Amino acid sequence: MLNFEYKNPTKILFGKDQIARLAKEIPTGSKVLMLYGGGSIKTNGIYEQVKTALAGFDLLEFGGIPANPEYEILMDALALIKKEQITFLLAVGGGSVIDGTKFLSSAALYEGSEPWDILAKPIRSEKGIPFGTVLTLPATGSEMNSGAVITRRSTQQKLGMGGPGLFPQFSILDPQVIRSIPEHQIANGITDAFTHVLEQYMTYPAHAILQDRIAESIMQTLIEVAPIIMKDRSDYDAACDFMWSCTMALNGLIQKGVPTDWSVHAIGHELTALHNIDHARTLAIIAPNLYRYKFNNKKEKLAQYAERIWNIRTGSVEEKASAAIEKTESFFHSLNIKTKLSEYTADYKQTAAFAAERLKSRGWIALGERKDITPDDVYKIVEMSY
Amino acid sequence: MLNFEYKNPTKILFGKDQIARLAKEIPTGSKVLMLYGGGSIKTNGIYEQVKTALAGFDLLEFGGIPANPEYEILMDALALIKKEQITFLLAVGGGSVIDGTKFLSSAALYEGSEPWDILAKPIRSEKGIPFGTVLTLPATGSEMNSGAVITRRSTQQKLGMGGPGLFPQFSILDPQVIRSIPEHQIANGITDAFTHVLEQYMTYPAHAILQDRIAESIMQTLIEVAPIIMKDRSDYDAACDFMWSCTMALNGLIQKGVPTDWSVHAIGHELTALHNIDHARTLAIIAPNLYRYKFNNKKEKLAQYAERIWNIRTGSVEEKASAAIEKTESFFHSLNIKTKLSEYTADYKQTAAFAAERLKSRGWIALGERKDITPDDVYKIVEMSY
Repeated sequence: MLNFEYKNPTKILFGKDQIARLAKEIPTGSKVLMLYGGGSIKTNGIYEQVKTALAGFDLLEFGGIPANPEYEILMDALALIKKEQITFLLAVGGGSVIDGTKFLSSAALYEGSEPWDILAKPIRSEKGIPFGTVLTLPATGSEMNSGAVITRRSTQQKLGMGGPGLFPQFSILDPQVIRSIPEHQIANGITDAFTHVLEQYMTYPAHAILQDRIAESIMQTLIEVAPIIMKDRSDYDAACDFMWSCTMALNGLIQKGVPTDWSVHAIGHELTALHNIDHARTLAIIAPNLYRYKFNNKKEKLAQYAERIWNIRTGSVEEKASAAIEKTESFFHSLNIKTKLSEYTADYKQTAAFAAERLKSRGWIALGERKDITPDDVYKIVEMSY
Repeated sequence: MLNFEYKNPTKILFGKDQIARLAKEIPTGSKVLMLYGGGSIKTNGIYEQVKTALAGFDLLEFGGIPANPEYEILMDALALIKKEQITFLLAVGGGSVIDGTKFLSSAALYEGSEPWDILAKPIRSEKGIPFGTVLTLPATGSEMNSGAVITRRSTQQKLGMGGPGLFPQFSILDPQVIRSIPEHQIANGITDAFTHVLEQYMTYPAHAILQDRIAESIMQTLIEVAPIIMKDRSDYDAACDFMWSCTMALNGLIQKGVPTDWSVHAIGHELTALHNIDHARTLAIIAPNLYRYKFNNKKEKLAQYAERIWNIRTGSVEEKASAAIEKTESFFHSLNIKTKLSEYTADYKQTAAFAAERLKSRGWIALGERKDITPDDVYKIVEMSY
């Protein structure tokens, strides 16, 4: 097991009707900015619940944060925060709204002249103005971690940021919100969370037995609840298991003491930047092919995953490992997630060159748990995904 | 799944040579009281490592905190804290030293005239003076939770306390400490941690698939590493898995959203109070018989545990459940832990009456996840354990 440091101070309020407890979690006298996305919270009742809960606060709002939160839009919110001297941010939404709020939390206290530097350099966020979240879309785990990913449309960039100052003070997880989420977003959420686990698990064996088993627990739970929640989003028990699994998949716990990869995300982000494909779907496109391409690096863990997750008990390490990749791809297909780039866009042929060039241009020479994935490898992996 | 609230702000520093990082975790200018137990830290090198790391601090020490930390001794430490105006406590030890430190953290800020009231009433500890821990004996999980158990020898009482003010600021977990732990204490640690998981798992099914699987992950890991670490305490990989499993067994995570029992602990504490039997061993004495006695309440989870932990795949629910109880008792035996009270003391015959009477005298009428274990039931469970 590798040495590790772990601290996650976010308070989780999980279950039915927790939004009503919001007022107790925000310091009295706060000037609150509520941030949200495209407005679905106005049709599913969450907007009203939040407004009712915060009746005693000086409350402003900023809607319209899109999926893959855009820097240009967030800069408008930042101007509002500064002008109105906001003291507390409340993200009401999914990972995009929460990630955007994290950027704002950090940028509001950033003393440099160009907030994009937080992402471009990047600058670790040791502090931020306090914020909480009301999660409306389980997927990214952003509600219980200190990282964010922000997009800049003008330069087609999608970059990460984070730091110990960016944990939410609290996050409210009411699984009843899942009733009104469209099916394709449920599928995205399952795929995103499942791939988060894979990125922290599908590396090389590191003598971290408990972390492996907890990672496997999350994957087993997602596989078990996926068909239930895809069929009936009002199944509260399945909604609970789905929601909590998404949070646990990326709250830092399973990555402690083990190597992690994250190259599927790095490559996937380029597919979103170029083609605007849903984040989760880019992961489903890349992951199976990355595992095929880096098979020798990952075959021991792939075989363990084959045995424990997919009950593949016979065959060589290589045979089990290969079968597990096929099972993974079939799992994504069972969620109606397509796993070929050409199924998303007719204009796919330059994608491998684009992704490889972008990784080169940023001075990144290597990805993966062994730092042995070069831009040339990225080219080949993306090409395999056409 | 039940509604839940979860927050655990303790920072974990895990791995080799982490004690050297101590100074960075304690606020500059603190007046530190280092608390420890019987002095084993002076022979295994940890005392020197801590002293070296804290060379820049005004440092006092208080040794001699015994297993089952005693109120009378802690009151001497409390007087020292007040006299010397200590601002930071550092527990260097196992669960007893850490629990004692938690009591002191709370008592130092308690404004009533009788600190025992914190335990007797009990009073929830919303605040305490800050403290950190250097864990030398994996077992209780106290290094990453906000609870403590304190003993008062003069009245043979062993009572719990806790509250959100009593999370350690940090805990240093260096698995190298395990090399010098006596074998019987390793066995106690495994038994204690394993039973902590059982208390949070062996109830009734609550549609909390992920929590079940994480609980199972901890038990599987303990079972896997137990024979390795019992045979060779210098096996660093096994020491890591053992140490992290003990922490994860009682840091709050697996009890969220599910019913919990804790009657094994409640009854076990009376056995320690009366006979001074090691805490972990009282759990091994009581748990199997409690599961036999409350079989109908627990058989579904016992059967799930049989399948997933002990690979018992055939037979009825009742047959699997019964076989799992036998496997549990055999596991304790494999650690050289005896599971009959008469194997610990010749003077056992009044224990059932003592335990039942004590539970009655405190006005407790019911234990267990269904609150259906009465003092009379306690009498019978203890009698089964003779």
